[in-house]
Amino acid sequence: MRAWIMAAMMAAGAAGAQPLTLERHGSFHVGGREVVVSGQPVREVVFSPGGVPARVDPNGTYLMAGMYAQYMLPTPLRGAAPMLMWHGGGLTGVTWETTPDGRPGWQDFFVRRGWHTVVSDAVERGRAGWTMIPEQTGGTPVLLTVNNPWERFRIGPNYARREVMPGSQFPVDAYDNFVRQNVPRFTTTDDLTLAAYIALLERMGPSVIVAHSQAGLFANRAAQARPDLVRALVLVEPAAVGDPARVAALANVPMLLVYGDYIVEDARWPTIRANGVRWAEAVRAAGGSADVVDLPERGIRGNSHMIMMDRNSDVVAALVQEWLAAKGLWR
Amino acid sequence: MRAWIMAAMMAAGAAGAQPLTLERHGSFHVGGREVVVSGQPVREVVFSPGGVPARVDPNGTYLMAGMYAQYMLPTPLRGAAPMLMWHGGGLTGVTWETTPDGRPGWQDFFVRRGWHTVVSDAVERGRAGWTMIPEQTGGTPVLLTVNNPWERFRIGPNYARREVMPGSQFPVDAYDNFVRQNVPRFTTTDDLTLAAYIALLERMGPSVIVAHSQAGLFANRAAQARPDLVRALVLVEPAAVGDPARVAALANVPMLLVYGDYIVEDARWPTIRANGVRWAEAVRAAGGSADVVDLPERGIRGNSHMIMMDRNSDVVAALVQEWLAAKGLWR
Repeated sequence: MRAWIMAAMMAAGAAGAQPLTLERHGSFHVGGREVVVSGQPVREVVFSPGGVPARVDPNGTYLMAGMYAQYMLPTPLRGAAPMLMWHGGGLTGVTWETTPDGRPGWQDFFVRRGWHTVVSDAVERGRAGWTMIPEQTGGTPVLLTVNNPWERFRIGPNYARREVMPGSQFPVDAYDNFVRQNVPRFTTTDDLTLAAYIALLERMGPSVIVAHSQAGLFANRAAQARPDLVRALVLVEPAAVGDPARVAALANVPMLLVYGDYIVEDARWPTIRANGVRWAEAVRAAGGSADVVDLPERGIRGNSHMIMMDRNSDVVAALVQEWLAAKGLWR
Repeated sequence: MRAWIMAAMMAAGAAGAQPLTLERHGSFHVGGREVVVSGQPVREVVFSPGGVPARVDPNGTYLMAGMYAQYMLPTPLRGAAPMLMWHGGGLTGVTWETTPDGRPGWQDFFVRRGWHTVVSDAVERGRAGWTMIPEQTGGTPVLLTVNNPWERFRIGPNYARREVMPGSQFPVDAYDNFVRQNVPRFTTTDDLTLAAYIALLERMGPSVIVAHSQAGLFANRAAQARPDLVRALVLVEPAAVGDPARVAALANVPMLLVYGDYIVEDARWPTIRANGVRWAEAVRAAGGSADVVDLPERGIRGNSHMIMMDRNSDVVAALVQEWLAAKGLWR
């Protein structure tokens, strides 16, 4: 195992040192719907300090609940399908970009290996925008304080004392840069988000989905809704899974679940992981393929919930890459 | 002029058809500050429908007013300095990416010509995030209805009837895709935004700034604060300019102002343009260099306020490129 990890890291380093050649790159918005607002008072707005007030009528039509997606299409193309990279709750597509301590992230790892990567910002956040219409979003979002992810994401047992898990791979010196990636999180927009993800699949055609945390829910449900559009599911510490009543829909969608370290001693993660393991068993019982990888059992230790940001992020990406290749999705 | 435009367009097409080679690409957050909130009630939050309520304490430390930036470093590198691309009000860095009708935007145009491009999302929007702390942001933001930019940005005289300016170059069939790029706009965060832009300059070192609309204000003021860090200012329909009392600071920062079509017949734009022309005169009077280009006078007609999205966007980008090369900033 050690030799394999070394080889994977050296390969990763070698790829990163070469220039990257792109056929195309760009972005688009997809999904969403029109919403009409009426009966609201007209406001006088001064757009810049000292400016002339402008009359702003909030009544009218808005476009809401669309999603933003940014793609890179490398040449030569080696992935058998686009790779859609779906971030977790309270975050944006930045999850997959440069790590908080400035190393290339998973988006770069996979595009350099010939994958057509598509990184999205889910609805009501990031470059998807948000609509400020409580009747449509279901309420106001939640923004977390700096300390919150430290303990919840298994970086360390105590933020106030900056206590870090023994052997942690999270780049704790750059923790604030991770916090800056956090955005307000609507807790009431799951249906809108799932609809937008399905619209993204319909636009891209059959794809591999790499989903983190909260997006495990959306990836499973989107695959259950449109199994014809999902070639594989890579679920990185999924916070939730799919609809048990429709597990048979995933019989032809190979699935990989990846879990990091420090789960046993955590208050919440043993339950979350057990849900994922049970889900994988249900998929297999329905005739599907579902592999569960606990990284510590492979000798890969020290991973927080933010595996794609940990110092050994390339090692885990290489493991995902191997799995995709073994499934015939890379040539 | 016509022949020159044709040559520029053919060159643009030729560059777009070739693969793009990048030395590196990535993203980061920069600037901002810590804010401590206290005395707020603790909330019970259900993060996903059906989930277990979690206790969320909003009191504590937040990081706010940072900015998001995404860069591409091409090889070979031909621009003499990084090119920072600053979007206008109520928008994000998406302004510079793929146009609403799916063509490569200015970011692609300049990176393909060897510029180290840096596209940012200003504070309290897009991937910069926003902090939901009214005491810090100065209030709630404004979101505009679908019809608002149509008339204000000189796309057409009447949205309800979808009336378009005669000869307009805006891709009106893709207007909704432009609307999807709009995000809520804080009208009270100019100081925070300027501070973050200056932090970006300090991180990148001496740079060319390409600024649109509202960012004309920030670009001029940032250049006045740190003229040592600005090699040139390209102001695309600036909505506002700099501090008249400190115009001498720009004596060594060459400046280009670009204006589109339909300004004379508009209610607001003659005044906005006149402010820019007066600003250019003041810069020249202070010993600086400031060129004003009215596109129609160069035979380039039909441009809305969103010049980088208009169908002739590459023609105008080529004009900017020529100007930068003439200033010795491209080799």
